[in-house]
Amino acid sequence: MDVPGYFAERAPLVDAQLDAILPQVSTPPESLHAAMRHLVFPGGKRLRPALAFATAEALGRPPERVLPVAAAVELVHTYSLIHDDLPCMDDDDERRGQPTVHRQFDEATAVLAGDALQALAFEALALPTEAAPSAVLASVRDLAGAIGAAGLVGGQVDDLAFAQDVGGAKDARQQRVESIHRRKSARLIAAAMSCAARFAGGDDRRVDNLCQAGLEMGVAFQIADDWLDRDEDEGCSLVHVLGSDAARERANVLLQSALARVEELGDAAESLRALMRFAVHRTV
Amino acid sequence: MDVPGYFAERAPLVDAQLDAILPQVSTPPESLHAAMRHLVFPGGKRLRPALAFATAEALGRPPERVLPVAAAVELVHTYSLIHDDLPCMDDDDERRGQPTVHRQFDEATAVLAGDALQALAFEALALPTEAAPSAVLASVRDLAGAIGAAGLVGGQVDDLAFAQDVGGAKDARQQRVESIHRRKSARLIAAAMSCAARFAGGDDRRVDNLCQAGLEMGVAFQIADDWLDRDEDEGCSLVHVLGSDAARERANVLLQSALARVEELGDAAESLRALMRFAVHRTV
Repeated sequence: MDVPGYFAERAPLVDAQLDAILPQVSTPPESLHAAMRHLVFPGGKRLRPALAFATAEALGRPPERVLPVAAAVELVHTYSLIHDDLPCMDDDDERRGQPTVHRQFDEATAVLAGDALQALAFEALALPTEAAPSAVLASVRDLAGAIGAAGLVGGQVDDLAFAQDVGGAKDARQQRVESIHRRKSARLIAAAMSCAARFAGGDDRRVDNLCQAGLEMGVAFQIADDWLDRDEDEGCSLVHVLGSDAARERANVLLQSALARVEELGDAAESLRALMRFAVHRTV
Repeated sequence: MDVPGYFAERAPLVDAQLDAILPQVSTPPESLHAAMRHLVFPGGKRLRPALAFATAEALGRPPERVLPVAAAVELVHTYSLIHDDLPCMDDDDERRGQPTVHRQFDEATAVLAGDALQALAFEALALPTEAAPSAVLASVRDLAGAIGAAGLVGGQVDDLAFAQDVGGAKDARQQRVESIHRRKSARLIAAAMSCAARFAGGDDRRVDNLCQAGLEMGVAFQIADDWLDRDEDEGCSLVHVLGSDAARERANVLLQSALARVEELGDAAESLRALMRFAVHRTV
């Protein structure tokens, strides 16, 4: 499958949804609205929305069916990047070749733009739709759980506290790194897939299976990032703990397990499997 | 009605719910969990939960029915205080006689604890309950709208930018102050009442009426705060724009309009009306 072609075809869907629900820069408070849009457009590859779309297609539904999910996960992803970049956290001046939100605007605006994007994510997810209200409500719980203290935020806390020179056995260090990757990256990826499965009418077993596949693939995706950044000296990285070869092998094991979970969906899941392979193999 | 008695009787309900859904400090990441609880316990009067409980009772339902709403609005209120106190915003060292979260912990932890509390609010609201899924989903939209760019966050942006010495006619300045009060304070109070009405099975007309009552009462509540703080030189205050007497009169007009909206609910709404009067008259 042509993965870049899939991104190119599906990204406009979520971009139109995001543009429709984000407040216009021409209405007050203009600075807040501009800050909310700053990192959303032009944005990245829209990997998380693409995974949501491909999950819908794997379950025999059109991608439009999961637009609320696609928009919500992209809004959460953006909010988390804005807050991670803050001076009190990673203190980054640039992202994707542009000034970070707190550099382009100011720190208060960056905190508040992130806060508003999180609220908008839940509003986007809960928009009236043809999906069953109980399925949407379960998705709200999935997303909230994935991005709260037990998920994205908790992972970021542990990532900030992570010191590469921590002692202990290699096994324990590997588990610590993977626990951070799982919470900080994989849970949102898994939520993109599990919420999309719910919107597409999947039953609990299927939703859980896709969630587990997303968790494994999400950790593998993050290990691929570690490998890309392998020349950096510090930070939470499985390449530093295991070495380059063993880390790549671990990513492959996780990816194969994730792909095996999706196998039962047959040909309809071809795009989903291709995206999962791409997310890990782009680099490893 | 005995308002302090009502608070004393109802607060343990929401406190138990908050304690049950907030992560334990004894589980990692401990600092995050401690920071999330720091401002929640012992907390304030629990005015917003009390308004949710009284709304349920006004519609003939037990207060337990709206526990998800009571917990959610208190979590949002707490998250917003933590972020408002940050050095890049109001830069406050103390709140309720205790160090603010960023003083007790650090700035990154304060940002992240607020982020996690916002996510937990939506998780708390969407918990499985006997309320109809479509009513809960409408509440998720209500809450998200109330606290996003068009509500709480937008109000905070304009509050930070507010300069008392702004020119223009008194009418325009009054409208500007009330617009900030409406978004920064009143919309969350109104959401406590409208979401509780949805959980209690209220129809759209009733939900909307209670929402409007909450908006009017919420602005009056904030004018009461302005009056309490009338010796402070700066900030967004209707007392500064209109003078003390006219501001108190404006608060009374808004309160009477809000009370009139609730009149149709009869004796069952006695506690709700008493809480609304208390919220404004405690000071004015």
